[in-house]
Amino acid sequence: MHFASDNAAGIAPAILAAIGQANEGFALGYGEDAITKRLERRFAEIFEHEVAAFLVPTGTAANALALAHIAPPWGAVLCHEECHLAVDECGAPEFFGGGLKLIPLQGEACKISVAAFEAALKRLPTGGPHHVTPAALSLTQATEAGTLYRPDEISRLAALAHADKMLVHVDGARFANALVRQKLSPAAATWKLGVDVLSFGATKGGALAAEAVLFFDPMRRAGMAERRKRGGHLLSKHRFIAAQIEAYLADDLWLTLARHANTMADRLAERLAAVGYPPVWPVEANEVFAKFPRALDRRLKQAGASYHPWQTNGLPAGVMIAPDEVLVRLVASFATRAEDAEEFVEAIRGA
Amino acid sequence: MHFASDNAAGIAPAILAAIGQANEGFALGYGEDAITKRLERRFAEIFEHEVAAFLVPTGTAANALALAHIAPPWGAVLCHEECHLAVDECGAPEFFGGGLKLIPLQGEACKISVAAFEAALKRLPTGGPHHVTPAALSLTQATEAGTLYRPDEISRLAALAHADKMLVHVDGARFANALVRQKLSPAAATWKLGVDVLSFGATKGGALAAEAVLFFDPMRRAGMAERRKRGGHLLSKHRFIAAQIEAYLADDLWLTLARHANTMADRLAERLAAVGYPPVWPVEANEVFAKFPRALDRRLKQAGASYHPWQTNGLPAGVMIAPDEVLVRLVASFATRAEDAEEFVEAIRGA
Amino acid sequence: MHFASDNAAGIAPAILAAIGQANEGFALGYGEDAITKRLERRFAEIFEHEVAAFLVPTGTAANALALAHIAPPWGAVLCHEECHLAVDECGAPEFFGGGLKLIPLQGEACKISVAAFEAALKRLPTGGPHHVTPAALSLTQATEAGTLYRPDEISRLAALAHADKMLVHVDGARFANALVRQKLSPAAATWKLGVDVLSFGATKGGALAAEAVLFFDPMRRAGMAERRKRGGHLLSKHRFIAAQIEAYLADDLWLTLARHANTMADRLAERLAAVGYPPVWPVEANEVFAKFPRALDRRLKQAGASYHPWQTNGLPAGVMIAPDEVLVRLVASFATRAEDAEEFVEAIRGA
Amino acid sequence: MHFASDNAAGIAPAILAAIGQANEGFALGYGEDAITKRLERRFAEIFEHEVAAFLVPTGTAANALALAHIAPPWGAVLCHEECHLAVDECGAPEFFGGGLKLIPLQGEACKISVAAFEAALKRLPTGGPHHVTPAALSLTQATEAGTLYRPDEISRLAALAHADKMLVHVDGARFANALVRQKLSPAAATWKLGVDVLSFGATKGGALAAEAVLFFDPMRRAGMAERRKRGGHLLSKHRFIAAQIEAYLADDLWLTLARHANTMADRLAERLAAVGYPPVWPVEANEVFAKFPRALDRRLKQAGASYHPWQTNGLPAGVMIAPDEVLVRLVASFATRAEDAEEFVEAIRGA
Repeated sequence: MHFASDNAAGIAPAILAAIGQANEGFALGYGEDAITKRLERRFAEIFEHEVAAFLVPTGTAANALALAHIAPPWGAVLCHEECHLAVDECGAPEFFGGGLKLIPLQGEACKISVAAFEAALKRLPTGGPHHVTPAALSLTQATEAGTLYRPDEISRLAALAHADKMLVHVDGARFANALVRQKLSPAAATWKLGVDVLSFGATKGGALAAEAVLFFDPMRRAGMAERRKRGGHLLSKHRFIAAQIEAYLADDLWLTLARHANTMADRLAERLAAVGYPPVWPVEANEVFAKFPRALDRRLKQAGASYHPWQTNGLPAGVMIAPDEVLVRLVASFATRAEDAEEFVEAIRGA
Repeated sequence: MHFASDNAAGIAPAILAAIGQANEGFALGYGEDAITKRLERRFAEIFEHEVAAFLVPTGTAANALALAHIAPPWGAVLCHEECHLAVDECGAPEFFGGGLKLIPLQGEACKISVAAFEAALKRLPTGGPHHVTPAALSLTQATEAGTLYRPDEISRLAALAHADKMLVHVDGARFANALVRQKLSPAAATWKLGVDVLSFGATKGGALAAEAVLFFDPMRRAGMAERRKRGGHLLSKHRFIAAQIEAYLADDLWLTLARHANTMADRLAERLAAVGYPPVWPVEANEVFAKFPRALDRRLKQAGASYHPWQTNGLPAGVMIAPDEVLVRLVASFATRAEDAEEFVEAIRGA
Repeated sequence: MHFASDNAAGIAPAILAAIGQANEGFALGYGEDAITKRLERRFAEIFEHEVAAFLVPTGTAANALALAHIAPPWGAVLCHEECHLAVDECGAPEFFGGGLKLIPLQGEACKISVAAFEAALKRLPTGGPHHVTPAALSLTQATEAGTLYRPDEISRLAALAHADKMLVHVDGARFANALVRQKLSPAAATWKLGVDVLSFGATKGGALAAEAVLFFDPMRRAGMAERRKRGGHLLSKHRFIAAQIEAYLADDLWLTLARHANTMADRLAERLAAVGYPPVWPVEANEVFAKFPRALDRRLKQAGASYHPWQTNGLPAGVMIAPDEVLVRLVASFATRAEDAEEFVEAIRGA
Repeated sequence: MHFASDNAAGIAPAILAAIGQANEGFALGYGEDAITKRLERRFAEIFEHEVAAFLVPTGTAANALALAHIAPPWGAVLCHEECHLAVDECGAPEFFGGGLKLIPLQGEACKISVAAFEAALKRLPTGGPHHVTPAALSLTQATEAGTLYRPDEISRLAALAHADKMLVHVDGARFANALVRQKLSPAAATWKLGVDVLSFGATKGGALAAEAVLFFDPMRRAGMAERRKRGGHLLSKHRFIAAQIEAYLADDLWLTLARHANTMADRLAERLAAVGYPPVWPVEANEVFAKFPRALDRRLKQAGASYHPWQTNGLPAGVMIAPDEVLVRLVASFATRAEDAEEFVEAIRGA
């Protein structure tokens, strides 16, 4: 009953094996090894587009470095008020960005609606050097609520952003989960919609610690190596981070793992609904959010269930959390077993 | 003939195995796992002193976070002009430190002499808010030149620093190599000499990517978790970085690996001296520096030898690099084989 | 008809004269002059409390330096979403604060209600190093909407802040306007209510360029001189900034000038109401906000009236700006004449 | 006997008068006033070149903003180890530059020789993202030692810098003193020699608090207004800083004042030499450096003389400061009187 987070899962076996294989012999450090050298090409093939790729060990590093690279210190990044980089990264974007400003937008299910974005753009003060300059829109796909932006939503948001000279960043810590659910190609989900920079996540998907910043305009490469290095995010034994990503991408492993996690989340949602706890948001990736009576929550914890409470301003209209209830998040991963849903529901029945 | 760097070696087998063992089941992320929880205690035992320990994936992160934590943005860190954090970290200390200033000191063999430090302290401008405030002395042990500070040198430097209200940081990327050479306990090499903060390296010693910042005054813990997080250096699957360090420390593996690397460096130095290329600095850790004729250098490279040229202002009196010579650095590691020295010297003879 | 801003007024004659008087002879720079030396004492008398005072040339500098000094880089500063430092300082607090985060709160008339602050505190995520640490509450008195916090509102907000280990900063660019309206002593309006740090404004009140950061706990002085210096805000000919403030404080000039500005604003509001344009918010300082038909606005501009349009989310319930209307801000200053209100209303009638 | 600093002088009468004249009526803030608008054009005429001009209240702000604007956070600025921005600005360039690195160069009389600069360029580590990127050369004209770079020195240094893709900044806090001594036009002393950015000083020359950053490529304007604003350096009553500079430039006042200061320094040097205290460096601007016996120094201070001791590594070969001697700096200004030299020498004789 381990639903605390997808990062509570370990390393997918094929990725662990790839680390072992990369361990043969000597290799130059800092990305001068053979695996790293072929990986950028691999990304380009998968995304059907030239990319500049920079590997880093954490999603926070990926997001913060990406935003710092596309926004000046006096830039503003518009993002959902509950997205990871606004809430859970302890100010990393502001730190890496030299004091850039995140402008939080509200919206149901952790999504920024086209209307909300348009309204925000209109509300931004302009004129003179008094106000920060809108520089980027950051979307999370899949969102923190386990929901998805539709392709046309992203393309309309991106068009608005570009019309105002802003770039579009996607935090893709759970990018694979979104992709397999929407049955889109990587290209169709990113640059074809107007995405300029992607934080491509592998850690939650099954890696030890490996993420990539992908710029779809390779000219944005300039300065990024220095930015990563001075952030302390250039691994010396770089072959091992490259090996993780290479294995993650090989034979569509990333998609297979994500499909499994999504299926497990679906199964869990279905079982929970059957016992009276339907998901508060549609389950579109690998996360299920439900309202539990506090008493049930306590007993599940006592029974050894592992998951976290959740806090949000973005519940659907009409959904309320009563004082004796708690909103909880249950996350499935590549390592979730089919029987986990049953065991959890069994525990609920027992409680 | 792989002498490019100790980070060109892979992962020591026991450490790789530990990653595999840590991969069983689920574990909470961000350091809430069992391995992490027991590791700080382990450090305290090994150092015979309470410590606050923070694991990070790179040495640059360790150094930059450590210095930023003990120096205000208007602080100055005195260090050797050729030390890693002054030259090879692309300004990471300045970035993490909010624009702190490194004050580079000169000295033979990458060492700051007591006299040089005293003179520097006297030369520092004081009075009013015009000048940065001396906040820390950073020493590298072993140094970039593969040399060692003697215990009494460190304790005298530390006493001077403390007298001026500065703290003492040691960049210990090759701390184990120093320790086994000097046959000192970890305690005798650090806090007993006045060291306040240690960047404890494991990556060069045989880990995949694992370093620790150790504060010998655990009160300095305050704020460091936040600093690490917003630097993007809190690994989500933290158990795997903890597992690396745990294995590195288990059964004195770290000392055994370092002893081997040192022995291999000694052997290489001896063989090189025998064919006319004695080390320019005493070999006190796992690095050998020698002068090669440029023609020899070219032929060795053609023969597949892997090593880097070196640049320094700190050659011993009387040692000069002629225009047709090149100073080179040869680094042994835990993975260097006994026959590597012979093969290299053979290649020299062949050339 | 100059109502664009209080900084569109020039220098009050007594302050200009004081600059001239300070110009006799030589004086040591950087605050070592006699005027500066006696000024901190003067502040202490006026505020009936020990203070540490730091003079700077702009309000942006005062706010940004003050907040950077009381919040760590991973700190959060809660403030009204429309306050000057959140909207009009181009990210200065984030820059000086090493990437600190402003958390914008909503509220009518640019005020944070006690209930809104309480709710925000409850909503702040806590636990672990993932989230920024609430460090300060910043209030603006008088607010950007020309309204005032009541003493009991400030003391209740401050009590809540202190209970959560946050400090209380007041942006007092128009502090004098608030004081004379509420007939409070400087002490009764600040530290007696729980205010820890005040950006004491003089520029809008009649100085050339002079503000002060006042810490009511003089121990907070540590490091502030360095912070100011490296921000470029330590004036070399410091006697002239000190002379401005000294003259501003002498013989209650600051209160007299503020009283005049407030009276002029009252008069303007009264005249506007009489011709059908009542203020949208109560006029509690020296600012009047009114809704004008766009056609009237255009004609007034043509007639030479100088004022700015205004944008807000904080209109009173029921007040709407129709598409053919514009919300405008009219600011009175020490230099506004009694007849200005009449002339402006005459222009309205003429239009 | 006021020789402590040129900033110990007050405001030149014509500049004070200009502040008074600018005080008539209302004017829009933040640089939207008429004086500011015509000033950039005035600078262009004087420098015979298009410029982008940004006024700020301090020299530290001018230097730090200028360097931050032309160097990335991972950039290096090469400068003399004793220049003002390296030693006396409390790390402002590092702060504004997001952690950029100053690389201090040694040289006699606070000057960087062409040979020293060439050698430094060769010594800079290159390759990979490990090292900071050389971004700018900063020269001080006149230097902190009151000496001058010859035009051909600047043009050769600038050519070397440009060849390495570095820009050339000049800290011109005492630019006027240099200009009148060398009888050069502003153009001939700057962009014609390859200077890209000038910190144009007026405060030491006679203003209250007014400096300008001048970019000779006006395209560099982009982003600078935001950078200044978020640094807190955009004055709200901007007309008064513009008025100072306008008056400083009118009728060659700046050159007249500088010529006077230089002449007073010459006179002082001559008198001092006559009584046995010749200047240690040639007096090329408005500063005189001399060695005094400590006993004399004490008695002069008792007699009311105001000046500062000085510390340097750049004495001419053969010049030594004995333990019973002190090196002192004596600065003349626009306000120094012809009789001051006599009085000072009289005091020496008396002592």
